Amino acid sequence: MIKVVLLGSGNVAYHLALAMKSTNNVELVQRYSRKNSNAQLFDSSIPHTTDLHEIKSADIYILAIKDEAIATVCRSLEHIKGLLVHTSGAMELNVLDSRFRRGVLYPVQSLSIDQKIDLKDVPFAIETETIEDQELLQKLATELSHHVFELDSAKREKLHVAAVFANNFSNFMFTCTEDICKEHEIPFEILRPLILETGRKVQYLQPMDAQTGPARRHDQDVIEKHLNQLKGQQKEIYKLLSLAISNAYKRE
Amino acid sequence: MIKVVLLGSGNVAYHLALAMKSTNNVELVQRYSRKNSNAQLFDSSIPHTTDLHEIKSADIYILAIKDEAIATVCRSLEHIKGLLVHTSGAMELNVLDSRFRRGVLYPVQSLSIDQKIDLKDVPFAIETETIEDQELLQKLATELSHHVFELDSAKREKLHVAAVFANNFSNFMFTCTEDICKEHEIPFEILRPLILETGRKVQYLQPMDAQTGPARRHDQDVIEKHLNQLKGQQKEIYKLLSLAISNAYKRE
Repeated sequence: MIKVVLLGSGNVAYHLALAMKSTNNVELVQRYSRKNSNAQLFDSSIPHTTDLHEIKSADIYILAIKDEAIATVCRSLEHIKGLLVHTSGAMELNVLDSRFRRGVLYPVQSLSIDQKIDLKDVPFAIETETIEDQELLQKLATELSHHVFELDSAKREKLHVAAVFANNFSNFMFTCTEDICKEHEIPFEILRPLILETGRKVQYLQPMDAQTGPARRHDQDVIEKHLNQLKGQQKEIYKLLSLAISNAYKRE
Repeated sequence: MIKVVLLGSGNVAYHLALAMKSTNNVELVQRYSRKNSNAQLFDSSIPHTTDLHEIKSADIYILAIKDEAIATVCRSLEHIKGLLVHTSGAMELNVLDSRFRRGVLYPVQSLSIDQKIDLKDVPFAIETETIEDQELLQKLATELSHHVFELDSAKREKLHVAAVFANNFSNFMFTCTEDICKEHEIPFEILRPLILETGRKVQYLQPMDAQTGPARRHDQDVIEKHLNQLKGQQKEIYKLLSLAISNAYKRE
């Protein structure tokens, strides 16, 4: 049985607590949060504290808190033994003080409390410093998810850049979509299924093979026609992305 | 009963034929295609011809053929009565000769033969020139889909631009994602669920509300850190999109 103390009360803490509950080999022995926010969302049978000095003994301490709070909370955890891991995709392992046995347990998904998601389907990127800790964290991660990847801080940094394209930038394409729809009084609903299908398609195809549209076809007439209908930043984005797509697909 | 002749043997024709089969009020009386390609994919009980002069009489003739073939095929259809519609998002109604009763029946989805999809969930954009034809085409479209929108050629043109952002450009973001993963030997699989969730989220949220990431937070440190890790067109794209996102979200 792996004993875990979970620190946090937000999106990631919520989903981790829920997932740990349904495992057989993980015991969530305590939860800490500064103000016990969202208390009603968590299983009330899990002991909770708002005092870092009352943290119980455990095998793994999971910091599911904001990036900027990690260093501060660490300073009040000097007394703990066991493996201390944070859950941030953006922070290096080094943000945890070197006096700890330390690691990273990063669920690669945009999680929110009001969303039903099975963590088993969420990939976890893990990092540790010793073989013993690697085995321990791997064991925990495998209880939580079917998809566990070892990734050091350098690679996780690149993963974070890739995730900006995968999530932030693609979502902004949908914002542009909606803006164009609004401007011309076209219901955005008409494009929602296409958006969903775009994401679905790359679950089994490589994005390079799923690409369609005027830029891939080098259809300069349509590109010009579209550019004439756009202005400002939308026009710049259309121009740059069409050029990048055209470059990616050499004329056959 | 609405009698339909379907012209075409590609992705759209395939899905339309399949959908018409499961309606109660539409009868597919004949299919035309130039070379009878993909014959094995279509119900063999539907009469097929490769001769445009042998086209049967019907209420609606659906041109599910390539954009560039529409004008040519029209010229050989002079003898038909009934409503002639094309299925293209990119072509105006006017591409059909004005001697016809004409219309557009455009399924707003990226369709391919190897993909299982229920047309009932695919929005259809329809256009006609008279109230009688509007009623007829509406009736057909409603048999095929739960989501029917009337959209004139001018609006459909804007819809097409919006769809480039929704599908082509977002897919290219996924290509950038994969390129970064490849370069740093990170398995692309680790980001596939995030991509799917990005598309899912905007099925019930406005994209503007679903936006996250450094640019929305005006986190210039992270943006600079990411830019230093990118080069060439990826760097340009990162810079332009981060700026556009920052501009869209004024500092709170």
